[in-house]
Amino acid sequence: MTKQLNIGMVGYGFMARAHSNAWANVSHFFETGYKPVLKAAAARNVSKLRHFADMWGYESVETDWKALIERRDIDAIDICVPNDMHAEIAIAAAKAGKMVLCEKPLARTEAEGLPMVEAVEKAGVANMVWYNYRRVPAVMLIKQMVEAGKLGKIFHYRAKFLQDWTISPDVPQGGAATWRLDVDAAGSGVTGDLLAHCLDTAIWINGSISTLTAMTETFIKERKHALTGEVQKVGIDDASAVLTRFQNGSLGTFESTRYARGHKAAYTLEINGEKGSLSWDLHDLNRVQYFNHGVEGAVRGWTNILVTDGDHPYLGKWWVPGLIIGYEHSFTHQVADFLYGLRDGKPAAPTFRDALETNRVCDAILASGKSGAWVTV
Amino acid sequence: MTKQLNIGMVGYGFMARAHSNAWANVSHFFETGYKPVLKAAAARNVSKLRHFADMWGYESVETDWKALIERRDIDAIDICVPNDMHAEIAIAAAKAGKMVLCEKPLARTEAEGLPMVEAVEKAGVANMVWYNYRRVPAVMLIKQMVEAGKLGKIFHYRAKFLQDWTISPDVPQGGAATWRLDVDAAGSGVTGDLLAHCLDTAIWINGSISTLTAMTETFIKERKHALTGEVQKVGIDDASAVLTRFQNGSLGTFESTRYARGHKAAYTLEINGEKGSLSWDLHDLNRVQYFNHGVEGAVRGWTNILVTDGDHPYLGKWWVPGLIIGYEHSFTHQVADFLYGLRDGKPAAPTFRDALETNRVCDAILASGKSGAWVTV
Amino acid sequence: MTKQLNIGMVGYGFMARAHSNAWANVSHFFETGYKPVLKAAAARNVSKLRHFADMWGYESVETDWKALIERRDIDAIDICVPNDMHAEIAIAAAKAGKMVLCEKPLARTEAEGLPMVEAVEKAGVANMVWYNYRRVPAVMLIKQMVEAGKLGKIFHYRAKFLQDWTISPDVPQGGAATWRLDVDAAGSGVTGDLLAHCLDTAIWINGSISTLTAMTETFIKERKHALTGEVQKVGIDDASAVLTRFQNGSLGTFESTRYARGHKAAYTLEINGEKGSLSWDLHDLNRVQYFNHGVEGAVRGWTNILVTDGDHPYLGKWWVPGLIIGYEHSFTHQVADFLYGLRDGKPAAPTFRDALETNRVCDAILASGKSGAWVTV
Amino acid sequence: MTKQLNIGMVGYGFMARAHSNAWANVSHFFETGYKPVLKAAAARNVSKLRHFADMWGYESVETDWKALIERRDIDAIDICVPNDMHAEIAIAAAKAGKMVLCEKPLARTEAEGLPMVEAVEKAGVANMVWYNYRRVPAVMLIKQMVEAGKLGKIFHYRAKFLQDWTISPDVPQGGAATWRLDVDAAGSGVTGDLLAHCLDTAIWINGSISTLTAMTETFIKERKHALTGEVQKVGIDDASAVLTRFQNGSLGTFESTRYARGHKAAYTLEINGEKGSLSWDLHDLNRVQYFNHGVEGAVRGWTNILVTDGDHPYLGKWWVPGLIIGYEHSFTHQVADFLYGLRDGKPAAPTFRDALETNRVCDAILASGKSGAWVTV
Repeated sequence: MTKQLNIGMVGYGFMARAHSNAWANVSHFFETGYKPVLKAAAARNVSKLRHFADMWGYESVETDWKALIERRDIDAIDICVPNDMHAEIAIAAAKAGKMVLCEKPLARTEAEGLPMVEAVEKAGVANMVWYNYRRVPAVMLIKQMVEAGKLGKIFHYRAKFLQDWTISPDVPQGGAATWRLDVDAAGSGVTGDLLAHCLDTAIWINGSISTLTAMTETFIKERKHALTGEVQKVGIDDASAVLTRFQNGSLGTFESTRYARGHKAAYTLEINGEKGSLSWDLHDLNRVQYFNHGVEGAVRGWTNILVTDGDHPYLGKWWVPGLIIGYEHSFTHQVADFLYGLRDGKPAAPTFRDALETNRVCDAILASGKSGAWVTV
Repeated sequence: MTKQLNIGMVGYGFMARAHSNAWANVSHFFETGYKPVLKAAAARNVSKLRHFADMWGYESVETDWKALIERRDIDAIDICVPNDMHAEIAIAAAKAGKMVLCEKPLARTEAEGLPMVEAVEKAGVANMVWYNYRRVPAVMLIKQMVEAGKLGKIFHYRAKFLQDWTISPDVPQGGAATWRLDVDAAGSGVTGDLLAHCLDTAIWINGSISTLTAMTETFIKERKHALTGEVQKVGIDDASAVLTRFQNGSLGTFESTRYARGHKAAYTLEINGEKGSLSWDLHDLNRVQYFNHGVEGAVRGWTNILVTDGDHPYLGKWWVPGLIIGYEHSFTHQVADFLYGLRDGKPAAPTFRDALETNRVCDAILASGKSGAWVTV
Repeated sequence: MTKQLNIGMVGYGFMARAHSNAWANVSHFFETGYKPVLKAAAARNVSKLRHFADMWGYESVETDWKALIERRDIDAIDICVPNDMHAEIAIAAAKAGKMVLCEKPLARTEAEGLPMVEAVEKAGVANMVWYNYRRVPAVMLIKQMVEAGKLGKIFHYRAKFLQDWTISPDVPQGGAATWRLDVDAAGSGVTGDLLAHCLDTAIWINGSISTLTAMTETFIKERKHALTGEVQKVGIDDASAVLTRFQNGSLGTFESTRYARGHKAAYTLEINGEKGSLSWDLHDLNRVQYFNHGVEGAVRGWTNILVTDGDHPYLGKWWVPGLIIGYEHSFTHQVADFLYGLRDGKPAAPTFRDALETNRVCDAILASGKSGAWVTV
Repeated sequence: MTKQLNIGMVGYGFMARAHSNAWANVSHFFETGYKPVLKAAAARNVSKLRHFADMWGYESVETDWKALIERRDIDAIDICVPNDMHAEIAIAAAKAGKMVLCEKPLARTEAEGLPMVEAVEKAGVANMVWYNYRRVPAVMLIKQMVEAGKLGKIFHYRAKFLQDWTISPDVPQGGAATWRLDVDAAGSGVTGDLLAHCLDTAIWINGSISTLTAMTETFIKERKHALTGEVQKVGIDDASAVLTRFQNGSLGTFESTRYARGHKAAYTLEINGEKGSLSWDLHDLNRVQYFNHGVEGAVRGWTNILVTDGDHPYLGKWWVPGLIIGYEHSFTHQVADFLYGLRDGKPAAPTFRDALETNRVCDAILASGKSGAWVTV
């Protein structure tokens, strides 16, 4: 029998839409034993909240997330608000015995995230952080190929996340649309926003980072605040670049920026091993590039794998070979795995504890960016 | 006020899933004034029908499509069954005053399709054929660019749809999974299945085809029937290639096949005009390649437009720049346009009448494939 | 001991430069037993001839090709003049006992080419036609892979040669720079100029064409003559498209045009077989795309082979892996093979007789373009 | 009148071939007023030297480079031997009043290179270092576009040079073929061999690097010596990665390795500026990717410029649009510019002094790789 799972959404923005879509769609494609129900959404801005709830069919709304958490008819709290509110909501939700799903990064810092981890673990509630790119089928295929030993010993891991939307000095900081430029709300700039995705994937596929050195930069030093109009110092990092050593002996290079003209959401990664290499690009998310050194020399090369076949991760649930899927499907897959985890009694990764490691690495990057020194993670 | 639109689905296969997804999702993204409701689904195979209805949340099922059509609570009939059943169902639905949406091709032949056109026009019911690729944002962008005169006079139109799934002689014909290889059910092979998409787009963008000559081939002459196991002559075309002259004076080349190893759903098109060129590939459906001859010589080239920005067709309703969408979104867009059409009292293209032209061209191709002669469409 | 081979060049244009480069360079890279010497060049325009001879170090010049042919110190005549002069020069050279190398196409028609074939065969002189693209390493690799059976049974052969340099009505016809638009000098338009390359490669790799139907078009009906300034009817085909059946049962589609905006020398080909597919693009001439259906499903795809390794055709003679070569190397390879052929007493393909077949197919295309009927080659 | 320039080559290896090709070919394409003559080649290995000289037509040989330098009939010495011999030969050649062309890097260290600079400057002889990639037409186009302000303020410069030929522990160090793995002969590993190219281009296009931090690694710690067979400690860097700050305020990331499976000579670079971005890849060396933010939003994207037109750098001297050139052409262009420089009395870059800066940056990288600290260049 399919069980109903009542979702309480906190937030109404871009991420709340992506998550709502996943909750709404998952049971059309995946038979997990659970049917999510969009039970209630909470936010302070009532008109925006109502519009959001109407679009997605949330059955009710709350203007205070605390009220949402107190509701007996809510099984899981999904946190889609700026980073500075993650900890308070997550800890309260855990105490109330709710499952907790938190948008990434877990927190602004490791120190802020640790009590969140402790709270969900103490409460014994299911918990997950939305590092959704793990569930892009191509990325999952890479994970499986590395685990199957197709690359052999790894020498290099390379990832970048490039955007260009803050190049204009007229972009403000703070407010609902541009809180990501406000260091208080976001905790950091590109490091926590973009590089955190690269780091989560890297740690998951290639293991822990042991040491690193970083360069961070704020190209535009002052911006108006979106709400007050006041010109203020910019506290975030506009760009960060990192050299790392992984525990497995491989070298890593990472970079994120919002000043790479022409790149919108250019998350790319590449892994070089003794036996082969793999690479991936979010803009072409249905493809993996694979170099298999084991192939006969004269016909060896980079193989462009179109990850749309039934034997590719998750794809058997969608359409037919050749028909691509999009960005939002990664969230649907993450929900599916979360629900399978509930069914099977196994937590779906990344849990809060898993995600804490990415926060730790981000902290180290920001510290090294200031000190100029190598940091042990 | 949002009006409810009750959908009656006929079929439960691949296309029924793609359409259901569109009906279920459209109101999460598009505010058309209508909210589709998956009211009932009809099919003969009860167990498959029930599973389909459960997955998608259809409120009820019917084992006879005639019963579905008779229901007062159904507003629109969506036909997702093999081509040989389109005409009977569509005509009956129109007579019952239902809106009718029919999977492409409209019919197996123009002669079979014409009474369908007459039926919906006589009944005055909204009608549409699911040539979904028109609503891929990149394809819509191409349409807009051509209409805006960015290519100038057109010299060449080139399209192919390549697949490879029937190369093995062990693939049967007939039955639920392989009816597309059964000429009675399908009407033709790749011409009506694949090339019809290319033709619909071409006529829409580049205008009518006046004359053509074609080559058709059946590589595997006999196959087992999926249900009876009997080895029978294959009646469909496995491959077709066509030379055309358009009314605007441009030349067309078209090809479709299920014997192009390595191609899954490789629908590609290219248009060459005096001032520029445009091309597109279904496997990379979020991109348009554009050559603008007007650009300064030394920096001129093919521009790879990632069609994910808010000012691109339909994209303002989805995510943020750089985040791609997939195959099924084309159906969601088509539903959105259908609903906008209802709201505004304007039929959404392609109507049954629009789609009849593609059937006429397919007939001409099959005839030319037999006669070897140029045919006036 | 290395033997000297004295070259007598007829012409000084683009092709004469490409051939001269090959003669001058070949012995720096290939040890064939022969050292070509640029002995003399012939043309009527003395100032252009002198400049050409100075640039390339030709030891002497002749203003009459007949004088060149009569010279005792010339071993081989290389014909790089417009097509209407090929036959007379080649036949005279053969009669004089010279080796004859003729720029493609062999002649304007098969009828004109046949006496050329007979002349060189009667004289027993080495002869070759410069269908240089056979000697692009990637194309040679494709030939070898097809011969090794890597594609299995062939279903489709597809080739195009697209350019855009004659779109403007201001381009004249006739004269030294634009004789390719003058039907008397060239014999035909794109069919003999561009499609002939596609056909030569196709026949070489996939065997003879048995039947075909074609569409030809002249978009701009009148042009000024470059020399007289007089506006005259254009006699050439601006575009041609062809459907073919090969003797091996596969289907072919071919197209050439000078009206495909954005394409400069876009010769592309693709072959689809039961076991795999191969494709190539002149603009990326160092790469082969290979789909090997034999690879394990989940990691199967199109492999981009960078043809620069020592075990690739001709590449062991050049640089190191990863370093690409260019267009003109195909001529150098053709000279190398011609010289190896001299050394080993085996004619290097395509001989005049080999090349006659391409003329025959071109004739059939032009005839079908007029009649609209299928033609048996 | 064309003047003869007599070349004395030191060495017979890969680079000696690439340079000889340039000297031999340049006057077929470029009218510089000079005609280089391959006068003499010098090396100790007589049989290899003779073979090399025969292939390229050197008029004579010397088994001692000092004898070559003393010859009155030699105008220019071209140094194509391992790095540890550059200084001695160059200084001696300069003292003898010869022009000196030295393969890159200038020297193993800045300290070793400085006397070379002083020697050529004191002698007043023309001098140049073969950082050939500046003369790839696409790279020159990038230089011109940046100088023309098409990118505006630069935010990021990113370059990598990836290879995979030393992954096997069976590759020896030392000897004629693998001296690049011998730290005494080479000075360093990938930093001086590969990254030096990236740095030379970067400094040329984006200006000087002010500070940097680096990570270097030797994956395989011991290798046999090619000549003695003795297993010895490996002294070179197998990989290096660098974070830099340029004097113009932009950030740089650089990486080089010989452990990136699947990459042969993968030198790539990308520059992001306020108004646009540019990127390039040595494996596709005839192309520039250009993002022009100034283009109308909906049709904006990365433009793939095929750098083969007559108005592109150097291309007017080669073939016709669409026909690509290869790796070795970069050397021919460098020779052409050297000869134009002689003609016009202007030194061709990079001179010895120009190239010294790259040595200085390499020294800083290797120092930072050891210390872990940021270094001011």
